[in-house]
Amino acid sequence: MMSPAASLSAIPIEHRYFEDYVVGALVDCGTIDVEEAEVLAFGRRFDPQPFHSDPDAAAKGPFGGLIASGWHTASLMMRLFVQRYISSVASLGSPGASELAWPRPVQPGDVLRVVISVIEARRSRSKPDRGLVRSCIEVFNQRNELVMRMNVINMLSCRDGGFPLP
Amino acid sequence: MMSPAASLSAIPIEHRYFEDYVVGALVDCGTIDVEEAEVLAFGRRFDPQPFHSDPDAAAKGPFGGLIASGWHTASLMMRLFVQRYISSVASLGSPGASELAWPRPVQPGDVLRVVISVIEARRSRSKPDRGLVRSCIEVFNQRNELVMRMNVINMLSCRDGGFPLP
Repeated sequence: MMSPAASLSAIPIEHRYFEDYVVGALVDCGTIDVEEAEVLAFGRRFDPQPFHSDPDAAAKGPFGGLIASGWHTASLMMRLFVQRYISSVASLGSPGASELAWPRPVQPGDVLRVVISVIEARRSRSKPDRGLVRSCIEVFNQRNELVMRMNVINMLSCRDGGFPLP
Repeated sequence: MMSPAASLSAIPIEHRYFEDYVVGALVDCGTIDVEEAEVLAFGRRFDPQPFHSDPDAAAKGPFGGLIASGWHTASLMMRLFVQRYISSVASLGSPGASELAWPRPVQPGDVLRVVISVIEARRSRSKPDRGLVRSCIEVFNQRNELVMRMNVINMLSCRDGGFPLP
């Protein structure tokens, strides 16, 4: 029998349901590159503070250079969350998150690794066809320094009768 | 003398410092449109769940149509946060946020209004040239329904000696 830490990763993402997200399960979601062009494009559209959107001003600013918007870091994390962690057939969205932290800046050229673990899982009381999973997401840079952490809640259909119908 | 609720809005964003963010201050940051093309582009790059990235699959999915990624909603909020709320000269970034909630879906065509209030402000003990401001951010749709709420912490230079030097 596999440990909880290993078993979730072993289930193809299109076969994961609420029941598979057991406390202790841990998924290494791999890495994603932080590209300067996207840091700038994201910053200019969504977070036009100089240190996210203007390389010259950023060089003279509080971080000594360009850094990624925290929302860009979160969005890059989300791509791996969707590709490697959350079920592609049973996800019903998220009501929210807590304890979102950006303890260190993220710079262009960084390579981010996302590691996610299940910290709580329970059937919904009001809607028994689904369950709620609380996950701890940690994002590290190539020096293994923590650059983002958050806890997120996801709703997931149960294998025995959710959406879409089995 | 102006009330705290009015006074922050009256200060041009390039003249705001830590001292201006007093508890009770409230800023109506105006509105931003949710465009379908951007919902899809954002979803496909960062959050490729079907209900964010595939109109046909979304129509048959749990929300009956396309909805914006919660990270897209947060990013749209951030644009108004930067344009209307956070100082353009004294912002030193954010260590994190708490209680991020997405109580209702956001759909293409929605018009989001962002309202931000200062709920806590204190000088840094370790770095007295700056202060920490905790803000409550609320995002409403055109029906005045709450679609996102979060508390965020920002570091800001003090008027009497921060970065950039006065």
